Amino acid sequence: MGMIGGGEGAFIGPVHRMAAELDGAIRLVCGAFSADPARSVRSGVERYGLDAARCYPTADALFAGERARPGHERMQFVTIVTPNHLHAPLACAALEAGFHVVCDKPLALTVADGETIANAVRATGRLLAVTYNYTGYPMVREARELVRRGAIGAVRRVQCDYLQGWLASPQPDNKQAAWRVDPARAGAAGCFGDIGTHCENLVRFVTGLELESVCADLNRFVAGRALDDDGSVLVRFRGGARGTITASQVAVGEENGLSIRVYGERGGLVWYQHSPNTLVVHRQDAPTQVLRAGGPGISDAGRVATRLPAGHPEGFLEAFGVLYRNFARAVGSHAERTPEVALPPWDFPGIDDGVAGMCFLAAAVESARRGAVWIDL
Amino acid sequence: MGMIGGGEGAFIGPVHRMAAELDGAIRLVCGAFSADPARSVRSGVERYGLDAARCYPTADALFAGERARPGHERMQFVTIVTPNHLHAPLACAALEAGFHVVCDKPLALTVADGETIANAVRATGRLLAVTYNYTGYPMVREARELVRRGAIGAVRRVQCDYLQGWLASPQPDNKQAAWRVDPARAGAAGCFGDIGTHCENLVRFVTGLELESVCADLNRFVAGRALDDDGSVLVRFRGGARGTITASQVAVGEENGLSIRVYGERGGLVWYQHSPNTLVVHRQDAPTQVLRAGGPGISDAGRVATRLPAGHPEGFLEAFGVLYRNFARAVGSHAERTPEVALPPWDFPGIDDGVAGMCFLAAAVESARRGAVWIDL
Amino acid sequence: MGMIGGGEGAFIGPVHRMAAELDGAIRLVCGAFSADPARSVRSGVERYGLDAARCYPTADALFAGERARPGHERMQFVTIVTPNHLHAPLACAALEAGFHVVCDKPLALTVADGETIANAVRATGRLLAVTYNYTGYPMVREARELVRRGAIGAVRRVQCDYLQGWLASPQPDNKQAAWRVDPARAGAAGCFGDIGTHCENLVRFVTGLELESVCADLNRFVAGRALDDDGSVLVRFRGGARGTITASQVAVGEENGLSIRVYGERGGLVWYQHSPNTLVVHRQDAPTQVLRAGGPGISDAGRVATRLPAGHPEGFLEAFGVLYRNFARAVGSHAERTPEVALPPWDFPGIDDGVAGMCFLAAAVESARRGAVWIDL
Amino acid sequence: MGMIGGGEGAFIGPVHRMAAELDGAIRLVCGAFSADPARSVRSGVERYGLDAARCYPTADALFAGERARPGHERMQFVTIVTPNHLHAPLACAALEAGFHVVCDKPLALTVADGETIANAVRATGRLLAVTYNYTGYPMVREARELVRRGAIGAVRRVQCDYLQGWLASPQPDNKQAAWRVDPARAGAAGCFGDIGTHCENLVRFVTGLELESVCADLNRFVAGRALDDDGSVLVRFRGGARGTITASQVAVGEENGLSIRVYGERGGLVWYQHSPNTLVVHRQDAPTQVLRAGGPGISDAGRVATRLPAGHPEGFLEAFGVLYRNFARAVGSHAERTPEVALPPWDFPGIDDGVAGMCFLAAAVESARRGAVWIDL
Repeated sequence: MGMIGGGEGAFIGPVHRMAAELDGAIRLVCGAFSADPARSVRSGVERYGLDAARCYPTADALFAGERARPGHERMQFVTIVTPNHLHAPLACAALEAGFHVVCDKPLALTVADGETIANAVRATGRLLAVTYNYTGYPMVREARELVRRGAIGAVRRVQCDYLQGWLASPQPDNKQAAWRVDPARAGAAGCFGDIGTHCENLVRFVTGLELESVCADLNRFVAGRALDDDGSVLVRFRGGARGTITASQVAVGEENGLSIRVYGERGGLVWYQHSPNTLVVHRQDAPTQVLRAGGPGISDAGRVATRLPAGHPEGFLEAFGVLYRNFARAVGSHAERTPEVALPPWDFPGIDDGVAGMCFLAAAVESARRGAVWIDL
Repeated sequence: MGMIGGGEGAFIGPVHRMAAELDGAIRLVCGAFSADPARSVRSGVERYGLDAARCYPTADALFAGERARPGHERMQFVTIVTPNHLHAPLACAALEAGFHVVCDKPLALTVADGETIANAVRATGRLLAVTYNYTGYPMVREARELVRRGAIGAVRRVQCDYLQGWLASPQPDNKQAAWRVDPARAGAAGCFGDIGTHCENLVRFVTGLELESVCADLNRFVAGRALDDDGSVLVRFRGGARGTITASQVAVGEENGLSIRVYGERGGLVWYQHSPNTLVVHRQDAPTQVLRAGGPGISDAGRVATRLPAGHPEGFLEAFGVLYRNFARAVGSHAERTPEVALPPWDFPGIDDGVAGMCFLAAAVESARRGAVWIDL
Repeated sequence: MGMIGGGEGAFIGPVHRMAAELDGAIRLVCGAFSADPARSVRSGVERYGLDAARCYPTADALFAGERARPGHERMQFVTIVTPNHLHAPLACAALEAGFHVVCDKPLALTVADGETIANAVRATGRLLAVTYNYTGYPMVREARELVRRGAIGAVRRVQCDYLQGWLASPQPDNKQAAWRVDPARAGAAGCFGDIGTHCENLVRFVTGLELESVCADLNRFVAGRALDDDGSVLVRFRGGARGTITASQVAVGEENGLSIRVYGERGGLVWYQHSPNTLVVHRQDAPTQVLRAGGPGISDAGRVATRLPAGHPEGFLEAFGVLYRNFARAVGSHAERTPEVALPPWDFPGIDDGVAGMCFLAAAVESARRGAVWIDL
Repeated sequence: MGMIGGGEGAFIGPVHRMAAELDGAIRLVCGAFSADPARSVRSGVERYGLDAARCYPTADALFAGERARPGHERMQFVTIVTPNHLHAPLACAALEAGFHVVCDKPLALTVADGETIANAVRATGRLLAVTYNYTGYPMVREARELVRRGAIGAVRRVQCDYLQGWLASPQPDNKQAAWRVDPARAGAAGCFGDIGTHCENLVRFVTGLELESVCADLNRFVAGRALDDDGSVLVRFRGGARGTITASQVAVGEENGLSIRVYGERGGLVWYQHSPNTLVVHRQDAPTQVLRAGGPGISDAGRVATRLPAGHPEGFLEAFGVLYRNFARAVGSHAERTPEVALPPWDFPGIDDGVAGMCFLAAAVESARRGAVWIDL
């Protein structure tokens, strides 16, 4: 695998490397790690310990350099971990250069950009994953399976929160913060583009429901901020279910407080990222059950996403690694000219999820701009 | 104290008795416990063990009978625990008969009814408490005190949920359910009239903020139900804070899942009823603290609402009892012609809270009726 | 009911009153509240609001005065909440004066004293309860029922901890502490006499097992203390089960940290006082269940000890009240000359539990004195 | 790095690989994965994807083959993940062949075997780590730092539990179970050799205290089992602290329930593996704090062991990886002939910990054998 972005100072680059390499099937071998050519090469050599010959000064050089290598020595896919505004041009260039792509979320700056990528995926026949990484947690996958099986009946209410506190005050010197609050690099949504989008994806992933319309009250609490740093969204789903999505980056003291609660006609499911290996299963007229990763009562859906016996805590990297593992499997079958549809439990968030995410963000931003009115998706 | 309602089969009557009598300052001595005269008397004698002479067949008889007794042998106040539609006529009659009143929430069927009661309070000079009982928890009171002191800075975001599951399916034979889903007896709001109103009150109690406008998406999930059994409300507060209130009676597996989270510029507060003696205090750039009822770091606000040393769990009845204790104190000072303003920590929810609750319900119902648009309060 | 002890400054007197009166079947009507006659009378009038005529200067005066009253106006039982050294003489005097007795734990100063009380119980035919109050929690009662039914198979391992921190430093001015660390008033065991004894009782209550032998390592961590303030005990039960009991009053930060874990051949049970309405039920090869007071799956054993619907937290007072409620029921059947054996769920800890508790303390103290060797019970 | 053991069917081999490779500084390049030569080679190629030339049929072949390679192409250290009886011969052979060694716990079959390895370490000047992996958790490291700094004052009481349930019934077909219950391969201790040894190490790591004597009641609950499957140990530490260690593999429903609680004169620390990124810090007369990995108030001790920002759950593999990371750092400085003493936060459990572990096991087994009497270490 190659990487674009993730150079010195970027948090997410090493995360992707650790997650991708976890199962031993993927190795980071090359990249263009920064928009600054010297820093790009230096990051590859010093941060990732790569062969200098494959630490390229630019993404174009990466594509060209890798294409020039014999097929079996060439990177098979590239991971794009840049700020959002670069996703579309880089993803399209990579696809057109023949590479499969893993792209960070949100997919692009706009719905139109997202659709451009989608067209490129269709045109090139390459694979693309979007790193909605929370779908990799075993108990999130188990939750989806339980909904699918009808364990809780038809879904009525969904609540998904993602609360952080790290942007509660201005962060003038924080590189992570800088681009996330800049519309030119982040897009029209700030907090929602960064983390609200995970909620939308997680809700669809677990429930299988499609969003029908949203009413979004987005806020900018820190003075001078150009993008939302907080907000709540009422959601109506096709078929009648209702829900809320709340995301905040000014919830002081919250870390990465992602949770989802789903209530159906006959049961309920509750999952919190801070206790990721536990899934609480409520049942009508029966005691609540606590399902545990690797424990009794877990279906294949959850089990194949677990690497360790029950009680050995797995976390963020392991969940992230499930996406890479599944993507690598699909890339492998593609390479062997035996492409398979990546069905659960071997699926990963793809281009459709990426585009759906952009549609949600566009609708939420438009709703908020007009004073929090209902906008159809 | 006397009681109206709370006869055979009613859940809440014995709760009020236990809560009121907990601190030894109040005794239930009389009442009219049912609309059925025979059942009323029988309930007083058999359920509450009262002197038959003070178990009246009707509320009117109660007022008349108690007025006929010498002052020191007369009930000092009456508790109204009937379905909502009877609150206004009974409260007004009691006030006009010279009795102080404790009235269950919501205050009345409509805002107009609520204002009628408010007028009666003003006209008679009697005291009235509304049993927004969750404000009696020590750690809720401590949370309010922390906000007042500025411990978390100006409030930005408030989330309050109250999730139950007991009405997830039709409950044709459940007396508790029957009147709560009947507009003639419950009012225009079902789930929100029953429990959403607690959220609104709790939010105002803890934050001191006033609601400016609401956007309410209320739902009826169980077929044939005439009133909401679920809903979410976006809330805007005067001064710029934002929040959500979610209440549901179809969240299968949830019991009495009341929680409140408040985030300000410099900190956050999290309280859950299922762990009522704990208040989580988030602080910017400092470790989170866990405040405990009766424990170190608790102010008088929380301390006077606690009866036991730290670690001896207090619960719902004890919190409810704090309202009665404070009300009894105000009644006492009134009787001694030394009326005091009931300031914290000796305050209790009063007529203004009751009316504010009715305004919230009216706005929420109107918002929902019009498709979840913003309605000013 | 009458009370001996519980005057000004004593924590436990009002607790007993609130617990006893909770269900409306018992009223505190008289007492001798202090060894100081003036304080005794003053406490009754001012603290408990009693008729001065029934606030006696001494226990003897209480017994005489109440015997002189007509039967139906006389106290039916007396609660002894003095320091331990007074339990035996007062309990015997009360029994011999014809009164039923509720006695605080531990039963007495020594095994011999305990047996003296037991003889008085037998001789007088009066009833006696020992306030091992933690057995009143609904989920503790449910746990016992589950063990009885064989839900977890034969018990193998039991762990019971009771950790407090309030005596981690000398407490020279704390009246509660003063007598508890004084062998003349507390007996041979300090921390174990105060709280370790609850563990022993709770273990026997839940498991039904009898202790065979103990190996106790008791400690005095605070300089100058004459009695243990901490310790751990290895326990062997008849039939082969094994366990540990740990009690400490120097575990800084712990409040009233009582917990019990029981593991059998096919399941396990975990209960913590800090979350008293929850019982975790582990099952072999099946998901763990979370039983909740008042919730689905609870047997009559737990249900009758619950006053509120699921999710309305009940706590220490309510559990304590279960003992009084059950005792009052037995007193009532005794008065009506229809004495019943108080079987579950209507049982309460009695004289046998009190004597067993004294035997445990004697064995633990002897074990510790000899360097933590095994002592048979 | 090379590996001995960890072939097909072994749980722990891939765990070591994932943990070792997590930080990008170590690669598994060779090994002898099974006592069966064909399986050994096959496991290396198929399970780990290694070059067949470096998948050796035997450990001797591994040592010889790697020594024959040029220094910079040679494995730098070998990880021994076999059953316990092979640790001593393999570790000695590896050390004598010039390789550094990572050895699974417990170090050996007997104290004597452990000292043989210690002698080999001293004689060869090679490095050796013992995978007491729980010491790699950031919050365990933070706990140690807090004790060192005196944050809780002198330690008085330590409780460490490690509860599992997977051996609650006979596991005739479980390869993991088979050797762990066989004295010839596991040593004289079963449950204590497997997991009790982690408790002893964790206690010493966090508190810095040395064990003085133990009184161990070890049990065999499952019929036919030759070694302990459960037990509790009273522990006395030099300097006067006291504690308990409980380990069980028959605690049905427990997964990998490792916890440690340490109480000192002025504070307490509580850590549970099931919530590994949280450390509860009790303080006398001040609210309890919740320290979180990566969060505010964490010292370098905890911070350098964390790879992700606060709120991104890290788990078992990441903690295990801290040991490998620190060991690799020491190996690197050794290779560069700039050997450093591996001081906190860069330390790892070494030969002294391994020998101490063997002494504890020997004492515990001897204590139990003699009926649970006190044995000095």
